[in-house]
Amino acid sequence: MIELGANRYGKRAIRLVKVVREPGGHRVRDLTVDVALEGDFTAAHAAGDNALVVATDTMKNTVYALAAEHLTEAVEAFGTILATHFLAIPQVARATVALREHRWTPIPSAGGPAPDAFVRAGGATRTASVAATRDSTVVEAGLEDLVVMKTAKSAFAGFPRDRLTTLAEAHDRIMATRVMATWRHVGPAVDWDASHARISTTLLEVFAAHESESVQHSIWLMANAMLERHAEIDEVRMALPNLHHWPVDLAPFGLENRGEIFVATSEPHGLIEATVRRRGS
Amino acid sequence: MIELGANRYGKRAIRLVKVVREPGGHRVRDLTVDVALEGDFTAAHAAGDNALVVATDTMKNTVYALAAEHLTEAVEAFGTILATHFLAIPQVARATVALREHRWTPIPSAGGPAPDAFVRAGGATRTASVAATRDSTVVEAGLEDLVVMKTAKSAFAGFPRDRLTTLAEAHDRIMATRVMATWRHVGPAVDWDASHARISTTLLEVFAAHESESVQHSIWLMANAMLERHAEIDEVRMALPNLHHWPVDLAPFGLENRGEIFVATSEPHGLIEATVRRRGS
Amino acid sequence: MIELGANRYGKRAIRLVKVVREPGGHRVRDLTVDVALEGDFTAAHAAGDNALVVATDTMKNTVYALAAEHLTEAVEAFGTILATHFLAIPQVARATVALREHRWTPIPSAGGPAPDAFVRAGGATRTASVAATRDSTVVEAGLEDLVVMKTAKSAFAGFPRDRLTTLAEAHDRIMATRVMATWRHVGPAVDWDASHARISTTLLEVFAAHESESVQHSIWLMANAMLERHAEIDEVRMALPNLHHWPVDLAPFGLENRGEIFVATSEPHGLIEATVRRRGS
Amino acid sequence: MIELGANRYGKRAIRLVKVVREPGGHRVRDLTVDVALEGDFTAAHAAGDNALVVATDTMKNTVYALAAEHLTEAVEAFGTILATHFLAIPQVARATVALREHRWTPIPSAGGPAPDAFVRAGGATRTASVAATRDSTVVEAGLEDLVVMKTAKSAFAGFPRDRLTTLAEAHDRIMATRVMATWRHVGPAVDWDASHARISTTLLEVFAAHESESVQHSIWLMANAMLERHAEIDEVRMALPNLHHWPVDLAPFGLENRGEIFVATSEPHGLIEATVRRRGS
Repeated sequence: MIELGANRYGKRAIRLVKVVREPGGHRVRDLTVDVALEGDFTAAHAAGDNALVVATDTMKNTVYALAAEHLTEAVEAFGTILATHFLAIPQVARATVALREHRWTPIPSAGGPAPDAFVRAGGATRTASVAATRDSTVVEAGLEDLVVMKTAKSAFAGFPRDRLTTLAEAHDRIMATRVMATWRHVGPAVDWDASHARISTTLLEVFAAHESESVQHSIWLMANAMLERHAEIDEVRMALPNLHHWPVDLAPFGLENRGEIFVATSEPHGLIEATVRRRGS
Repeated sequence: MIELGANRYGKRAIRLVKVVREPGGHRVRDLTVDVALEGDFTAAHAAGDNALVVATDTMKNTVYALAAEHLTEAVEAFGTILATHFLAIPQVARATVALREHRWTPIPSAGGPAPDAFVRAGGATRTASVAATRDSTVVEAGLEDLVVMKTAKSAFAGFPRDRLTTLAEAHDRIMATRVMATWRHVGPAVDWDASHARISTTLLEVFAAHESESVQHSIWLMANAMLERHAEIDEVRMALPNLHHWPVDLAPFGLENRGEIFVATSEPHGLIEATVRRRGS
Repeated sequence: MIELGANRYGKRAIRLVKVVREPGGHRVRDLTVDVALEGDFTAAHAAGDNALVVATDTMKNTVYALAAEHLTEAVEAFGTILATHFLAIPQVARATVALREHRWTPIPSAGGPAPDAFVRAGGATRTASVAATRDSTVVEAGLEDLVVMKTAKSAFAGFPRDRLTTLAEAHDRIMATRVMATWRHVGPAVDWDASHARISTTLLEVFAAHESESVQHSIWLMANAMLERHAEIDEVRMALPNLHHWPVDLAPFGLENRGEIFVATSEPHGLIEATVRRRGS
Repeated sequence: MIELGANRYGKRAIRLVKVVREPGGHRVRDLTVDVALEGDFTAAHAAGDNALVVATDTMKNTVYALAAEHLTEAVEAFGTILATHFLAIPQVARATVALREHRWTPIPSAGGPAPDAFVRAGGATRTASVAATRDSTVVEAGLEDLVVMKTAKSAFAGFPRDRLTTLAEAHDRIMATRVMATWRHVGPAVDWDASHARISTTLLEVFAAHESESVQHSIWLMANAMLERHAEIDEVRMALPNLHHWPVDLAPFGLENRGEIFVATSEPHGLIEATVRRRGS
């Protein structure tokens, strides 16, 4: 005689970003949520009968719908709301919701924190590369894994359309990227640390302040400002993945998505690479 | 004076699975495709003018549409078709397409290779765990990272529907998973290697042969057969992620998707875990 | 006729930690260095003649030895010193050194920044888990990927020795770990965010301040303080990998290592897990 | 009152390779072992008393020493030997040993399976890149993540020695690498699949058969054979990390290491890159 022992099922890695749009500025909540249910699921296993099997796709929808309505407080509170929701399903005996929150902090700007540009806590690694021959030594400084997001002032429209184009024009989208940038020094800098700090600050300031028409446009504006304001460098290279945040369609649930609820994705992603330099360099 | 140097852009990590459904059985083509374009994109950078910027989303669509029509031969041939397509766009001077193919091989069955079940080349790791106290020694054998796929005989229907349910019933879907399975031995086996081989074979045979109503159902059937056929074990534990393969909507491109073109995803994924055992064990 | 084209070789992923021990406190420099050389290496390829092939193991040694002597300034400066060193080898035509610096910041303490405890920039993720049944709801809060290091007040001695023991007793070692901690709430907290901040602060304060005899001892002291100072929780669980930092033997290079130069490793690592709770909880 | 709850500790990710050198050829056993102990460890936590704390470093040593003596059978059997060993320590109440075995299979050669060259199961991904301009289309085929090992016929000696050189000369070492290779086609091949299979076979055959003086030398010999035997290509590029396998010093345990027990490492690693081509191509 064979029997079913402990069992559970659910949805893992539900990636959710909520942009809370308040008068004083935006706030970003970025969660990864796992849901697991235990209960009366013997028939699903032993008889292939799905009558009690809530689809894991529905669990995902639930996370997005309840986030639209209720995600304003701490993850412990949102987790409790979710667990309570799933426990209201009769065949569920235990609902376990695990949440991880990825922190974003506003990018400081001249007039106080920018209300609509953010940097993900942690991550940015300072980089340097020195390539020496007997004729010359080229020093490139830079950074990688600087994850930033604009929740306003980002558009992508006016692009060509053909039979294979389905993307809608976007006049107010989220732009998120993981910046890889290097800048080439004209010569040995007086103070590498100070130079790196100044140039990184310019990059972040322009990222927060500018009106973006595309990732290409953003690269150009950031690199231009870096070259114009910092005479010690003569070339900037950037590679920016477009970490797409797609708006979730809440209409089937009777809810409207006012640019608040997004699914964060990593595959596939756009990748935009460019070099900007002083003419003649 | 500042100018634009080398630059390119495109779409990375386009995940594409094509199931070629032939009379003698199915074949699986599993690709990751990167597209990069170079050409006349100065205005996009310097003026924020997107008139010549083919959307990277369109590149993704192109890969799926041309895969539906043309992906039957080697990746070198398909890459050439894609590169030629993009080069037909006037502002493109160079199109680079990089492709990686992940191999799947048919799971052998009693009557020759199964026409509709596959194992991804490589990966499966044999595992063992020994937990000893002064009273007992428990040996669990198993495997992990065994990636398998059924291109037929997999359904998911009859599940509950509520306000938050949008998933359509599926009577013929792809099921793909990365098997983590362990089985507990009743006592010291005579020949561990032979036992491991026999039990793994049972797992694969049942995976290929059965009609699945859900992942839960599949776990039950596989674990049942493992216990029934192999007296040396008394409990089976499995954790199966549901690695969703979503059909691509080809209708906007004037094409029909006859269960052939899928996007392979990893986030979010269902996760189904269960223990099946001899009663009283 | 076949010929050798572009070629280079070197050492990647050289993991280097330097603890700069100054009167006012310690500073941590944490680098990953890649070295690549180009030059006259045709005979090595075409004739299997290694007479000009500087061993990549020697490159690794060079990075440690020069770090001991010269790593006090910016990575750009240290990279230049390394590249210049390699370029002094006659058969080398180009030396490229790429460096990534992982930032550590002092853990704040009551009396100003602690001089000998650090947290790695970025990374820490806030976690929560809610498990609800019809009888109870258990909320666990926590954090993961909080990487911290003590450069003083950490020992490991007095452990058993047998035929297989080769580890030397350490009375002043580096302790580094990636904290995974969860704490169970007695009931619904008044303010989850404030509670999380307070408890995390206690964890970090005790990490920085205590004299550690082992990782087990550190877990006990941190968990004890968390329970004693925060009545809203009744159980703490921690899993702490011991991210070993081994002192580099500089004696073959005629240098002394005064607790300054370490190789950071990740495999294998100790893992210490424990639950600490209020009696009766 | 605060008390210690469930707790355990041990060593994770112990990477062990054993080369069993038998008259008919070598066999490779490649394991990752985790050890965890439970027992009387309260004083270690609550009093910082290590008198009963077996060092995790000793656990690592134990795995290597017992592998030298006993690792000939299945991982279940070796795990039982390890668990029994740890359970003989009085303060240990439960020893749990988890093992993962990574399979290597002999590389087939003309005269049957090579006795001393192996390919790791799974992994190799076929690659292709097509770069098209209006003037030309360049097709490169290749593969990546092909992990191979030579347990004989690999040396590295005769390299320069200076103050910073500590590496001993090796006349019989293990060479392991993860092959990344691409080959450029002269024109559209008649049969891409057949061409890819033929060229991959040449690469593996030469890897297994040749006497290697260095990784550079191996690249040259493999690339040479690929160009000589396959007229459809005119350039080969390879990047080969040197995945170092260091012999474990068993002398402190009263054992001799006759080229059998190695620790597999990934950081740091040598990286050798070269292009080999037909002259004039």
